[in-house]
Amino acid sequence: MHMKKGLTLWFTGLSGAGKSTLSAPIAALLTEQGYNVEVLDGDEVRTHLSKGLGFSKDDRDTNIRRIGWVAKTLSKHGVIAITAAISPYRDVRDEVRGWVEKTGAGFIEIYVKCSIAVLAERDVKGLYKKALAGEIKNFTGVSDPYEEPTDPDVVVDSSVETIEESVRKIVAKLTELGYLQPHALRA
Amino acid sequence: MHMKKGLTLWFTGLSGAGKSTLSAPIAALLTEQGYNVEVLDGDEVRTHLSKGLGFSKDDRDTNIRRIGWVAKTLSKHGVIAITAAISPYRDVRDEVRGWVEKTGAGFIEIYVKCSIAVLAERDVKGLYKKALAGEIKNFTGVSDPYEEPTDPDVVVDSSVETIEESVRKIVAKLTELGYLQPHALRA
Repeated sequence: MHMKKGLTLWFTGLSGAGKSTLSAPIAALLTEQGYNVEVLDGDEVRTHLSKGLGFSKDDRDTNIRRIGWVAKTLSKHGVIAITAAISPYRDVRDEVRGWVEKTGAGFIEIYVKCSIAVLAERDVKGLYKKALAGEIKNFTGVSDPYEEPTDPDVVVDSSVETIEESVRKIVAKLTELGYLQPHALRA
Repeated sequence: MHMKKGLTLWFTGLSGAGKSTLSAPIAALLTEQGYNVEVLDGDEVRTHLSKGLGFSKDDRDTNIRRIGWVAKTLSKHGVIAITAAISPYRDVRDEVRGWVEKTGAGFIEIYVKCSIAVLAERDVKGLYKKALAGEIKNFTGVSDPYEEPTDPDVVVDSSVETIEESVRKIVAKLTELGYLQPHALRA
């Protein structure tokens, strides 16, 4: 299947909330349906496009605009671009939405919510402990702002949902919008 | 028409040699044949992906790798990415070729040759005069190196060819490789 216009699936949320964890099965489902899918992981893009940038607001904005520019360029040509960067600032996310929609492609913002309490408990990389102890500056959600989306297309909450429940919500939205066939998810 | 794997058309050559001038009609012909075509212009990419980078070897290499990474990602999804940046260093061009070919996409290096004498005479932006007077540091071909491709897929020479002649050479190569139908160029 080849769509003339593509889509940007924009995951946003705190570090460790589950953006990459959720984007992987969604990418797999869309690929299975014949779409060209490209996952733009925050870390990979930092390596290739944003080496040298730090975590000040300006540098974060620049990084997100670069991811957004690549997602826009891919979506314009029918690819489904999936991004999974924290993208803490609302105005830059909205700016990118504008770029993508201007090409005729779709833009779906997925807010992956999770409480700091749960994130600190999970703390896979040990970063929340350090940040809460004041040892990491500019740590989103602790010592740096995270602006929640005001009107996201999908909200999932990994504090209370299983991965399967969150995937189902996203699949439901993609089905509603015609990107996935009903029953794409058989599990 | 939708190809499973795309192509990167990599123009290289000195400033003012004719890279953008030649890429425009080629992009138009490929679009006319139904391909998804994206022109990654050196200046546009500098604005979106490489703001803050200068013209040292390291910064130039980083800029070219970023253009290359985007071209690779597009080509991987069936797009024809056309780049028109000076890209003075051979090793980085070859590195990008490796990335693109690894995805299964094609890579065609087009060397747009032009003598410094002719460029200085044309001097559309008045830059060669300044560079030859020693007023611009790191000016490719005058005060900074340009490494000619050792084995380009197409060579055009805008010192001695008309734009039409050069376009014909590129079209012939694209036809030979099956990207264009014979007689795509009717002029």
